[in-house]
Amino acid sequence: MTRRKDAVACAAPDADSAGRPLAIICGGGSFPAAVAEAAAGRGRRPVMFALKGWADPKLVEQHAHHWIAVGQLGRFFRLAKAEHCREVVIIGTLLRPPLSQIRLDWRAIRLMPRIARSFGGGDNRLLSAVADMIEDGGVRVIGVEEVAPEIIVPEGALGRHQPSARDRADIARALEVIAALAPFDIGQAAIVAGNHVLAVEAAEGTDNMLARVADLRRQGRVATPRGVGVLVKAPKRGQDRRIDLPAIGRQTAENVAGAGLAGLAVAAGSTIIAQATDVAAAADRAGIFVVGVREDAPR
Amino acid sequence: MTRRKDAVACAAPDADSAGRPLAIICGGGSFPAAVAEAAAGRGRRPVMFALKGWADPKLVEQHAHHWIAVGQLGRFFRLAKAEHCREVVIIGTLLRPPLSQIRLDWRAIRLMPRIARSFGGGDNRLLSAVADMIEDGGVRVIGVEEVAPEIIVPEGALGRHQPSARDRADIARALEVIAALAPFDIGQAAIVAGNHVLAVEAAEGTDNMLARVADLRRQGRVATPRGVGVLVKAPKRGQDRRIDLPAIGRQTAENVAGAGLAGLAVAAGSTIIAQATDVAAAADRAGIFVVGVREDAPR
Repeated sequence: MTRRKDAVACAAPDADSAGRPLAIICGGGSFPAAVAEAAAGRGRRPVMFALKGWADPKLVEQHAHHWIAVGQLGRFFRLAKAEHCREVVIIGTLLRPPLSQIRLDWRAIRLMPRIARSFGGGDNRLLSAVADMIEDGGVRVIGVEEVAPEIIVPEGALGRHQPSARDRADIARALEVIAALAPFDIGQAAIVAGNHVLAVEAAEGTDNMLARVADLRRQGRVATPRGVGVLVKAPKRGQDRRIDLPAIGRQTAENVAGAGLAGLAVAAGSTIIAQATDVAAAADRAGIFVVGVREDAPR
Repeated sequence: MTRRKDAVACAAPDADSAGRPLAIICGGGSFPAAVAEAAAGRGRRPVMFALKGWADPKLVEQHAHHWIAVGQLGRFFRLAKAEHCREVVIIGTLLRPPLSQIRLDWRAIRLMPRIARSFGGGDNRLLSAVADMIEDGGVRVIGVEEVAPEIIVPEGALGRHQPSARDRADIARALEVIAALAPFDIGQAAIVAGNHVLAVEAAEGTDNMLARVADLRRQGRVATPRGVGVLVKAPKRGQDRRIDLPAIGRQTAENVAGAGLAGLAVAAGSTIIAQATDVAAAADRAGIFVVGVREDAPR
């Protein structure tokens, strides 16, 4: 995997896009607001398309916004056109919705065969198909690093602590586990301690997986002592980077410490982070490392 | 993978071993007692080597028995010799022990470099190294199917319910996930629903993984309806079949139903089952299937 070719070009506002409105399809959590602020800081007007049931009203209502249900693709296109948005970022947590919460409009129903085909896979395949449909409708889906590079984890340690040689071996092992699961559209994260794979993430989410390892440790079922082991998060190989990049925040760092691990490694250049300085401070307090690593680093 | 060549030959007692005592290194659960009864039924005298902290006193004390700690390899050899045991079965749950619970005798300490090398991997590598050391000491480690074929799951449905075509596709997908994780010495089990991988087992154990999926369903985070999805258990490819075969029991079937899945598939010929008729009855009551499948079945 090569580093993003556009990382430098996009740090400066794009002459073509500066001043233009930017649609933001908002899932849960604080990232949609962070992207909106970053976009506004670059002179773009954010227009929030808040997903009912996921987006945080307090955050989206600080900007121009519209509420939409998952499945209202026609409504999205009408509103995006009215707001003169030609680009959209999809951001925030959006766990696979129960079918009962989906509202299909006519545009979505016409696209149902495509949606149905993509529903048979993992989340990435589904979201990727949705992104393609949005692009076919004339709105370009762009990655968060194009509009908010400041919320992307860079290479190197974020706080004071550094991974040891043993931690680096565990990081390499976890990256291999994640790579092995890429064909199954799961596995953005794994926990390895002393070369032993303790946990693999599928549908449960990272915090849930960390809580499980904390439980196993309380039950005396983790052979390695506290301070050994790593959580690694990385996008699946072949993942559509317009959407669904792995994310970390202060809670992640605190939960890594709670699980008795040495630290947390994420794919540099393709992991989003909420308030990096808060995360670094929490990691320093807890005595753990947080590090951005190259996924293609020699193993 | 071919079917076990010895499945038929071992249904009848081996002329050489009939009447000879059989050492059984006993972890937790009811399987050690089931193996002891099966061996006794074939005219062999079971001698239980009950692992302190794991073996169930009520069950092992019904036979000739000795208590040993994990790590007392010299003690095992002395007692096995005194009891004229030339073969041993290792059976029962033996979660990776905390270092504090291990008692090393001189024999084990002499073998420490080998043990230490194998501790860096998963459970299978560790147990496999222990089995090799026991064989080097002159006691043959034999698979449970050689002495108790009646507790091995055969091919086909155990109860009344059969997997549908969709269930079979989910079973194939889960077998692929398990195969992909073989190099990491984890992943005897995975849960797939509607082609979506919901959970992968690492250190937490199958019941824990099923409870997680039941939780995800309660939280509305499983998109497929109740009655869709399968738990699949299979030995890792390359797994040492003398030890640590996957196991199921009535509780597994009940937990599969509790997680809202359609059923449970295991590798025929290499999965042990406690009281198969009880499991079949529990599955029938819960409306789920339990099926033994060929791992090398066409996908």
